[in-house]
This record gives sequence, structure tokens and C-alpha cells, in this order.
Amino acid sequence: MAKPANKKSAPAKPSWRGIIPPLVTPLVGRDELDAPGLGRLVEHILAGGASGIFALGSTGEAPSLSYRLRRELAERVCDHVAGRVPVLVGITDTSFVESVNLTAHSKKAGAAAVVLAPPFYFPAGQPELLEYIQHLAAELALPVFLYNMPSYTKLFFEPDTVRAAAELPNVLGLKDSSGNMGYFHRLRALFADRPDFALLVGPEELLVESVLAGGHGGICGGANLCPELYVAAYQAARAGELAKAQELHRRIMAIAGSVYAVGRHGSSYLKGLKCALSLRGICSDFMAEPFHHFREPEREKVRQALVKLGIL
Amino acid sequence: MAKPANKKSAPAKPSWRGIIPPLVTPLVGRDELDAPGLGRLVEHILAGGASGIFALGSTGEAPSLSYRLRRELAERVCDHVAGRVPVLVGITDTSFVESVNLTAHSKKAGAAAVVLAPPFYFPAGQPELLEYIQHLAAELALPVFLYNMPSYTKLFFEPDTVRAAAELPNVLGLKDSSGNMGYFHRLRALFADRPDFALLVGPEELLVESVLAGGHGGICGGANLCPELYVAAYQAARAGELAKAQELHRRIMAIAGSVYAVGRHGSSYLKGLKCALSLRGICSDFMAEPFHHFREPEREKVRQALVKLGIL
Amino acid sequence: MAKPANKKSAPAKPSWRGIIPPLVTPLVGRDELDAPGLGRLVEHILAGGASGIFALGSTGEAPSLSYRLRRELAERVCDHVAGRVPVLVGITDTSFVESVNLTAHSKKAGAAAVVLAPPFYFPAGQPELLEYIQHLAAELALPVFLYNMPSYTKLFFEPDTVRAAAELPNVLGLKDSSGNMGYFHRLRALFADRPDFALLVGPEELLVESVLAGGHGGICGGANLCPELYVAAYQAARAGELAKAQELHRRIMAIAGSVYAVGRHGSSYLKGLKCALSLRGICSDFMAEPFHHFREPEREKVRQALVKLGIL
Amino acid sequence: MAKPANKKSAPAKPSWRGIIPPLVTPLVGRDELDAPGLGRLVEHILAGGASGIFALGSTGEAPSLSYRLRRELAERVCDHVAGRVPVLVGITDTSFVESVNLTAHSKKAGAAAVVLAPPFYFPAGQPELLEYIQHLAAELALPVFLYNMPSYTKLFFEPDTVRAAAELPNVLGLKDSSGNMGYFHRLRALFADRPDFALLVGPEELLVESVLAGGHGGICGGANLCPELYVAAYQAARAGELAKAQELHRRIMAIAGSVYAVGRHGSSYLKGLKCALSLRGICSDFMAEPFHHFREPEREKVRQALVKLGIL
Repeated sequence: MAKPANKKSAPAKPSWRGIIPPLVTPLVGRDELDAPGLGRLVEHILAGGASGIFALGSTGEAPSLSYRLRRELAERVCDHVAGRVPVLVGITDTSFVESVNLTAHSKKAGAAAVVLAPPFYFPAGQPELLEYIQHLAAELALPVFLYNMPSYTKLFFEPDTVRAAAELPNVLGLKDSSGNMGYFHRLRALFADRPDFALLVGPEELLVESVLAGGHGGICGGANLCPELYVAAYQAARAGELAKAQELHRRIMAIAGSVYAVGRHGSSYLKGLKCALSLRGICSDFMAEPFHHFREPEREKVRQALVKLGIL
Repeated sequence: MAKPANKKSAPAKPSWRGIIPPLVTPLVGRDELDAPGLGRLVEHILAGGASGIFALGSTGEAPSLSYRLRRELAERVCDHVAGRVPVLVGITDTSFVESVNLTAHSKKAGAAAVVLAPPFYFPAGQPELLEYIQHLAAELALPVFLYNMPSYTKLFFEPDTVRAAAELPNVLGLKDSSGNMGYFHRLRALFADRPDFALLVGPEELLVESVLAGGHGGICGGANLCPELYVAAYQAARAGELAKAQELHRRIMAIAGSVYAVGRHGSSYLKGLKCALSLRGICSDFMAEPFHHFREPEREKVRQALVKLGIL
Repeated sequence: MAKPANKKSAPAKPSWRGIIPPLVTPLVGRDELDAPGLGRLVEHILAGGASGIFALGSTGEAPSLSYRLRRELAERVCDHVAGRVPVLVGITDTSFVESVNLTAHSKKAGAAAVVLAPPFYFPAGQPELLEYIQHLAAELALPVFLYNMPSYTKLFFEPDTVRAAAELPNVLGLKDSSGNMGYFHRLRALFADRPDFALLVGPEELLVESVLAGGHGGICGGANLCPELYVAAYQAARAGELAKAQELHRRIMAIAGSVYAVGRHGSSYLKGLKCALSLRGICSDFMAEPFHHFREPEREKVRQALVKLGIL
Repeated sequence: MAKPANKKSAPAKPSWRGIIPPLVTPLVGRDELDAPGLGRLVEHILAGGASGIFALGSTGEAPSLSYRLRRELAERVCDHVAGRVPVLVGITDTSFVESVNLTAHSKKAGAAAVVLAPPFYFPAGQPELLEYIQHLAAELALPVFLYNMPSYTKLFFEPDTVRAAAELPNVLGLKDSSGNMGYFHRLRALFADRPDFALLVGPEELLVESVLAGGHGGICGGANLCPELYVAAYQAARAGELAKAQELHRRIMAIAGSVYAVGRHGSSYLKGLKCALSLRGICSDFMAEPFHHFREPEREKVRQALVKLGIL
């Protein structure tokens, strides 16, 4: 794999602040990466000012990929990024051992941290979930971000569970994709004395308000497409520039309300995002099953939305 | 792996009728099988008259196991069974490619069929689910049972989806673990002209009534513990011996109401079942995370329940 | 209100066995009964052999009706029935006081018992629900049936709650409309020593198996349309005539799979049932908001289904 | 009923901006108002700067009250308020006719508008819900606020449904209690060209961010207890005074995290709020079934929380 010339060593102390895009996984087939597309996508994201890259999340369709491909992707992303920003790798799994295995592989590839949602087949109780995190974190040689994603995992990280997990030395923060800002505020209050514990949101519609309320940033899918927009929104909110932040929030809402709103609900976000990246010439829009990419006329609708938004 | 002497070739045409226990996975550690326990468990089940064995289902904690261990288990079970009954292997996964891989491995090991629930991370629509089944079944060199398990997978196999999937040459039947007998009856009505399409239930509380209504059998967890009871209940219901079937149903309910009713709901069924197998001296009760085995005093409660039931 | 000539005094000790149809409420306008239709419907049901009539249930659209109309309906039904069978009146409400009020009115009108689902706006915990039943039953001068209807009320009557409520002197039984036969069997086991506590099912698809398993009957909407079919199915199951019971079960499934399967799911059962009653000339198909009756072409589909079923 | 001396005529054009507390209903018995407490509570709220009062919402336990008491409450509140601010009355019901009746009564009593959540027993589809609103609004002689409360009503007001309903001449705005800020932002975007359509939030944890994003105010339960706090938070957010707004937000979170966090979840908010009002000497904490007021030691915990917050 060719590496960019500007490789630097990894930052000594990542701050886990700002925009950390959940990387789309460019594919050309069911089990084949779009390697050139991946390179272009990484460069596009870094050029936009992202603080990190999160590979193998939900937006990366990780659960739909083979383990072989997940390992290849972790390697390639670390190689491309080459230490310019920290790389986080999603290790969410139903199997404890597979999470351990992928972490070991990711560390060797150069990842800075891993991201972990609850095991998502059997519905564990909160004490079982906490014990799971405790046992697993002890086996992992990398820092861990928790990932609250109840709509897909059926499990909520209750605030008390997060607080107890945060006592572990390598649990660094939490990404909240619940969409529930009341929950986010409860966590913020619970961690008022722990400014080192990073709290980031997933849904980009909530980026501005969460940062205004003291959140540390966003892991926003749209930052694959327009990283600079999300970085600017984060910075404006961080700086308390309210009018600017709200204007950027409206542009984020305009993307969500058009690019992600074509076709069937549920998968429309992922399909629209991948389609838009393809229309911008960044990477292929092939999707892993159970989804498939937009065909015409949906593709045409996404194109028109991008033109209207000034992205194309 | 030593094979029993009585190895026979696999039955030419499995009938997919009767009791096919979803095999408990005996473990001695997070990633280590209890091999002697597995051998004893298989013999216990076969001695009880089971028509087949289904390895790597929910009762087998399959999603919690590493892929290495899943492959080892499929091999060992096929070796132990040695063709005396057909072996079914669960290939449910979030990744299409991993389902293909495990099927290839299972076929080589000697499995007769595979069992497939919907991919359970991203919530697919019914057309996406049907397409998934169609694409996947075409890649599989074994017959396929569908597995309706909405509480864990978040997805229901709608009757129309089942009907369309049943047109595929290697889709042979469906195991319904929804607990919804209205749904089961709708499927029965829809397949009134397809007596070859096997319809079995998961929850053992529903075994008798489903067979009385024309269902083909049960994939009942309790048949790990007392296979002869479930086989007898199936046969009585099949023969229309109503009084006997209801008496056996009451015994099945008594197990469910005591052995599976200790401790926290959700995992209490799995914990109670594995604990009871350990108390009978059949296999270890170690569990894969996120669960752990019963300790005292729960173990004592299970012991007392087994004594009262005449099982110990 | 004219009363039929054959008025008899109410049965001294109702047995709460058999088929007790949940009465459709015939309407000619938003707040106006179809009085002649109501009379015909009651006679049709009684001619079919029903053991009782349950007015103001879900099938009767009770929550959608004004209190004035609920009171009028309770009076008219009691007058028409004139003691030939016991009349049960639904008093499910979000307001304790309104349940008390409607019970007082129903008693005066001649009702034999009331039917009570949990209050369905605020989600109460089980201890709160039990206390609610205890306090309310103490205020009611009629026997009470509990009504488990979780899809509409958001609350399940947990088995322990039912057992505790059954200790009250005027709580006589439970109608289970959960569709969950595992739950029904758990209740059966819990009440094995209380044969006087009546357990009936709501969903007609489950009538035969519940009676085969020892249940006491059904509160089945289809018994408005073809009461004799449900009565025959109950009697066959009760008598252990398995082949006959299954044949009648198939006819019940054929109605559910056609008459209730037209149009949008959810309300299709109610719309189809009322449409069928209108097509048979029994009563008007006007519906209370938020629903409205079928227009062509749905009505034509129901007509064709009835012809095919031999009902028209 | 004694009326305060400072009665004024109702404002000609209410602006529907700011804090409109959802009035707690002070009770001394199951069907009896705490009339003096109600007077003190109204005065306390108005002294705190509220822009309106919303009687008979969820916080007012409206669905648990008899209709007689609902009518009495609407009258008394209008009398006490005496035109100083607009009074909104909740008419949410499962019965169309009862909503019409309560609106007529409220208008006569002097209410300025009514508030309507979807009918909450039968789950209507969105087209049915829209038609319901259209038919009902046409019968109402007062302006209507829609009320999105999916956790209690099981139904979401989809954005397209809101947009269509907003075309009706007397539908003025929406209160969103979904807790889903992504939804709120979608509505904001959809009504960007309709600044007259009022969008307010229910959950007080979301007050500041919703107003920062352009929302028009909050219908926040805590404003019964500390109206001036919520009014100040609204005003700071409205004026773009970020630091002040966030500081007030933290105080709001501190109330939610202590006063509402005692005892069993679900009802703990209502119980804690009513208990706190009682501890402040404003009104009785008697609750309508299915809930009951806090006893010691919960009451003591609420007392300590209020002391710590400087409220007692």
C-alpha cells in the first residue's frame, strides 16, 4: 500500500475533541474494498480539518463486512492516515473474543483507540453490560470509547453504567447516537468533575447544541461528504459564536433533509451519503448487503439535492 | 476426535419432523469447548429420540462465540453424531460473507442443513430481507431453514417474505421463535399446499399446540435436558392423543416455570438450562459473555426444582 | 326501548364459559347508535349460541365513543338481551372515577359484570397497577374481569399481579388478548388450583388451542359475524374432538386471512368486521373516529371474501 | 369562586412565546380539587413571569381525572387567571365527541386555546390522524395546539402530518414532548417560512437548546415550582446570552437530576414535582390513581434536594 509522503508520528496525546468522521467504507464488491476511493476519501476528510477518523462504525457498515475485510480496512486506513490524526477502530461485536482479536490487529496497524457498543444479539442487563465492559477493557491494549447506539443494539448505556465504566483506566469517552439530548445532558452533569472524559454525539442534527452545552465534538456521518462544514460548525459552537453556529446548523439540516431523505427510511441515510460521495467522484457507492446502492431515479434526486446545496 | 463406533451414513432424505434440540454449547472457558461434555450431551440427546441436532443457535450462544470456536463446534458435533441424525448449523450473522464461510465449513464437516435468521444489526425492510435471502441461498451449498426470532433480530419474517423465499430450491422450512401462534397459523394456512415446507416452533411452551395444529415439530431448548419428554409430547400431539399430550405439556410448563424462572429475566432461560445440565452431570455450565453461570443460591434453587420435577 | 317478549331473569350463577362475543357497536353517526342494527346484531349473536355478550370492548370501539353513548349502549344491550345471557360491560378508562361511574350505570341497566384493562395513558408499574385494581374493585358493585391488552394499553398484567388480583372477592377471571400463548399457559399453570377463575382468550386464531389446553372460552370478534362457528369450535375443543376442532380452526383462520386482511393493517380487523356485518344486512358499518368504514374497492373485496367463505 | 382584583381582559393577540407551565392539578381527594392550593399555584406561576398557563396536560394528570373535575378545573383556572395571560386547556381524548365537549366548556370558561395529542387507544395511521385533526379542528371554536407525546400516545405526529394540519386556520402551533431534538429541528426547517406557527418543547432539559435554535418557548413542568428560573432561561436563550443560558440550563438539570429522580422511574417526575410543591407550601401532593404521592423516606429525599438547590 502506498503511503502519502507527509507521514508523521502519531500525536502524543490525542485530545478527542472536534469532528471525528465515522468513515464510510468504499466497496467495489461484496468483499472487496475500493482502495483508490478509500485513499481519496481519507485525504478529503483530512483536508477538511477532521480531528480523527473512526473506521468500522455503523456508517462504515462494519457489521455487514467480513472480518478479513475489516482487518484490511483498519490497516489501509492507518496506512493512509499515517499518524496525521488518531484512527479509531470499531470493535463492536456479539463475541467478546472477536472484539479482542480485532483490537489486537488494530493496535498492530497503528490505531489509537477502539470504539465499543454493547453486544447486540442477547439483551444483557445493565450489571451484565458493565461486567462485560470491565472484562473486555482489561483485555484490550488500546483506549476505549463507549458507543451508545440503542436503536441498533437494543441496549442503552444507563448513566450509572457509564459512570462505573469510566473508572476503568482505558475508557476515555462515549459517543452518543441515541438522539436523546436529555440523556446527553444527564451524562454531562454526571461528568461535570471529569472534563477528561470525552462526550461526543453521533447525529449531526445535534452537533451544534451538544457543543454549545459543553460537549466535545461530533462523530457525524456527513463529515465524509463536507468535513469542513462540520468542523466549522463545531468551532463556531465551541467559540460561542451563536449566529454563525446556527447558520451552519441550518446547512447541516438542509443536507439531512434532502440527501438523507430520499427513498426508504432507515437505510436512506447510508444510501444517500454513499450516493453523494459517488456523485462527487470520491468513492464507489457499492453497499454491503442487506442494503444496495441507489439506482436512478433516487440517484438523480440526490444529484439535484447536491446541486441545490452547492456541493455539486 | 474419536468418533463413536456406530457411525452410519447420513439419512438420504431427512424428514425435518419431530424434535431437533438447539444444542447447548458446553464451554470450559471463554474460547474453549467442554469436549467431553459435548460428547455426553450429544449422546444424551440422541438417546432421547431426537430427529436432528441444531448447533449454533441462540440456545447455543452462537453469536457470543468466536468464529474459530463455531467452526470447531460444527466439526465436533458432526463427528459425534456421525450421521445418526441430520445436523443443522446456525449461520445467522450480520455479515453475508461470514454466513457463506461458515456454511462452506459446515458442509465439509458433514452438516445436513443450515439455519438463518435475518441479519440483526441494521434493520432491513422486507424487500431487502427477501433479496438478502435470495442472494445468500444462491451461494449456499446446503439446504436452508429460516429462523424467525424477532426479539433478538428486531426483524419479523413477514408471511409474504417467507412465501417468496420458499420458492427457492434450497429453502426447506422455518423455525418460528416469535411466540406468536397467530403468526404460526397464518404461515400454516399460507403453506397449506406445501406439506414439504417444514414449520417448527422454538418455544417449548407452544410445542404441543403447534403440532396439534399441523406443525412439524419443535426446536426446543429443554430437549437438551429431557429429550425424551419433548419427543413424547411431539408424538402424542402428532398422534392426536390429546390427554397424553396435555399431560406432557403440563410437565414442559413445570420445567419452564421453575428451571428457567430463577434469577433475572431474559437470560434466566439459558442460565437455568445450562445449570441444570451441569447438575445432571452432563456438561459444564460455563457461559460465554455477556452472561455468566448461576452461582449459589440460584444453583440451589435449580437443584431443588430438578428434584421436585423428578429429574434429579 | 322495546324489549323482546322472551325476557327472562338473569342466570343465577353465570359460568363464564364458552363464546362471549365482544359486541360491535353499530353506529349511524359520530354520536348516534344504529338502534335497529343493534337489536338485529344481539339477536343474531344469541341465536348463534353465545354464552354472554361483552359490550364496550375494543371491538366495540368503546374508547372512541362519548360517555353518553356508552351509557346508552349499555342500557340498550341489557334491554335487548333481557337476561337471556349475562351482559359484560367494558369500563376500561384512564380515569378511576369514570370507571366507577360507568359500573354504577351498568349495574342499574342490568349488566352481570364489568371488564377492565389497565389505565392506558400513564404507564404504571405492576405494584401501582395491582393497587389500582384493588382500590377500584372495592368500589365496584359488580364482578370484574381483567383484560390483558398490551398492544393498546402499553401494560402487561404480569402473572403475579393477576394472581394477587384474583384474591379479591369480585375478580372472576381474565381475558387475554396479548396473543402470547406462553403467557396464557403460565396463567393456566398458576391457576391450576383455581378452576373457578375464568381464563378466556381474545384473538380468535387462538381459540381452539387455548380451549384444548384447558382455557374456558373466547371473547372473539368474529362471533359477531358467525357466532355459531366459534361456538362449535369451542364445543369441539372442549369435547376433545380434535379433527373437528382443527377443521373449524381452519375456517376461523380463513375468515381472519380474508375478511380482516383488506386494507391497512391495524384497523383492518375492525373495518373488515364491520363491513362484513353491513354486507350481511345486520347493521351499519359507520365507524367512530379515528377510523372510517371501508369504501369501494375494499368493500367489494370483503364481499368477495364472504362469498368465497359461504357467508354471503 | 373569588377572583383576584387585578382582572384584565384577555390579550387580543396572544404571542404563544415564552414559558407556558403545564399546570399541576392540586387535589385533596380522588375527585376533589385543592381549591386554595390551586389559587396559590396560579399566583405563584404568574408572579414568575409565565406567558400562559396550560391546564389539563400530562403534568396535570388530566387523563386520570373525571370529566366533572376537568370542567371544574378549567373554570377555576380561567377565573383565577382572569385574563392576565392566555389559558390553554388540554382536550386530548380517545373520543372525538368528548374533545368537542370539553372545548365548548373551556371556551365558555374563558380559555384562549386548546391542546390536542393524538387519540391514544387505537393506533391510527398518519392519514387517519390527519383526517382526525381536520375533522376535529373544524368543530372547535378555539385555536388548537398540537401535542406530540409519543411515549404516552404511541403515535408520532410525522412532520408531513404537522405541515398539513398547520394549513387549518385554527391550528397555531405544536408542543413537542418527544425528547427528540432531531425531530424538532426537522419541524423548524419545515416551518422556516411560517414564523407564526409556534413550536415549543415539553422536556425542560431541552428548553435552552430549542430556543437557541429558534424555538418559541417551553411548556415545562418545573415552571410550576420555579417559574422565574425557566422564564430567565428562556429569555437568556432568546437574547443569545449563551453563558447565562447555559448556567440556567445547569440549574434546570440539577432539579431534574434530584427532585425528579427519587423513587421509581416513569412516575418519579410527577411525584417529585408534586411533592416539592407541597414542601414549598403551595399545594397538596395528593395524586390521582394510578399514582400516589411520595411518603417518607422519598419525601425526605425531595426535601434535601430542594434545600441543596436553595429552593427550600
